[in-house]
Amino acid sequence: MILYIIPTPISEDFEKTIPDYVIKIMHGLKFFIVERARTSRRYIRASGYKGNMEDLTFFELDKRDKNIIPKEFFKPALDGNPIGLMSEAGMPGIADPGAVVVARAQELEIKIVPLVGPSSIFLSLAASGLNGQNFTFDGYLPVKTPELKSKLLFIGKEIQNKGTTHIFIETPYRNNRMVELLLDSFKSDIKLCIASEITGINEYILTKTIGQWKKNKPIDLHKKTCIFLLGK
Amino acid sequence: MILYIIPTPISEDFEKTIPDYVIKIMHGLKFFIVERARTSRRYIRASGYKGNMEDLTFFELDKRDKNIIPKEFFKPALDGNPIGLMSEAGMPGIADPGAVVVARAQELEIKIVPLVGPSSIFLSLAASGLNGQNFTFDGYLPVKTPELKSKLLFIGKEIQNKGTTHIFIETPYRNNRMVELLLDSFKSDIKLCIASEITGINEYILTKTIGQWKKNKPIDLHKKTCIFLLGK
Repeated sequence: MILYIIPTPISEDFEKTIPDYVIKIMHGLKFFIVERARTSRRYIRASGYKGNMEDLTFFELDKRDKNIIPKEFFKPALDGNPIGLMSEAGMPGIADPGAVVVARAQELEIKIVPLVGPSSIFLSLAASGLNGQNFTFDGYLPVKTPELKSKLLFIGKEIQNKGTTHIFIETPYRNNRMVELLLDSFKSDIKLCIASEITGINEYILTKTIGQWKKNKPIDLHKKTCIFLLGK
Repeated sequence: MILYIIPTPISEDFEKTIPDYVIKIMHGLKFFIVERARTSRRYIRASGYKGNMEDLTFFELDKRDKNIIPKEFFKPALDGNPIGLMSEAGMPGIADPGAVVVARAQELEIKIVPLVGPSSIFLSLAASGLNGQNFTFDGYLPVKTPELKSKLLFIGKEIQNKGTTHIFIETPYRNNRMVELLLDSFKSDIKLCIASEITGINEYILTKTIGQWKKNKPIDLHKKTCIFLLGK
């Protein structure tokens, strides 16, 4: 009884970021739990799968409620067939759906095997030069102004007092607005790393102080995948 | 001017966790900033490097003070030669030395390219089934009892109020003691994931509630690499 956690590429250059071993494991599976079957089929084919697509079974996660995990998803595993968990891009369960599937599998005492692949959070943290001994991923920041302001205050204090690096994401069409907000909200010596299109051809990872960013604005981030990191 | 961040294996099975592309990039470099030259040389050789070892230059990080980064480390990059940053195991800069090197390189406007490889923190988080939308890596918990107790209280509150997953490590010979402490410190419905020897032959990643762990104790963790994750 094995559930493989299968990372998928986060950019056009998938050969650079997925070990051959991970592709081989994936090609050996018949059952998958995925976000969207269509994308997963396309990726499996593109990765060089020579088998018959009709032999593969895809269970799709519920689009509206990620907590609904039908029991049938685990039947293949409980019958002795290894299954794979894949999200649309990146590492299932980290800033991505899939954690509830893994939690259920843990409860069923299915062995969980996480495989190596790209995580934009992790790659941008390493490339930021910010503190990697203590960091927090906040997901999306609150949308409403009062909650957002108090969150930014909290982040500022944690950077000051503990040296914690804070990592967060934003809806792509709001990225530029987020940069403006950050430049207005933090002291000039706080560092901001902007990491966009990680592992892609246009990868952009730049760390400057808030003061420096005010003088040298970043590239246009509109509709690009982007991670923001704040720290010392 | 490029600084590659080069992850290295965290277990005996290195072919499973390092993409060929990363090995190729590494084999093309002549200059490295590393924790220990001896280990790095051995790894480069084991990974199939056919060139002459004498052609490679290794700059070693200061063992006592990670903040001392001599300017000569960056001379090759500033002269137009790509350089590689490697730690002993895993991803440089994340729960590992190297962040200060990257910070200095960012200041010098050297392009930073992070490469994909294994991180025990990220792999264990994905395999834990715990919340991956909001998590904190705490590094080592405080050693002294009062500070440790207040940290554990803080972690308990963050799990309860925000659903934050907390991830931390311990000196390997203290792992068993840490488990006992956690079982004594948290409510029975809090989940604890114990992740040991990630990516290795004896990989062990198990999530149970504190209440369940009290009834079914984990394997002996003495002197094993181990990550602890607490959450809901």
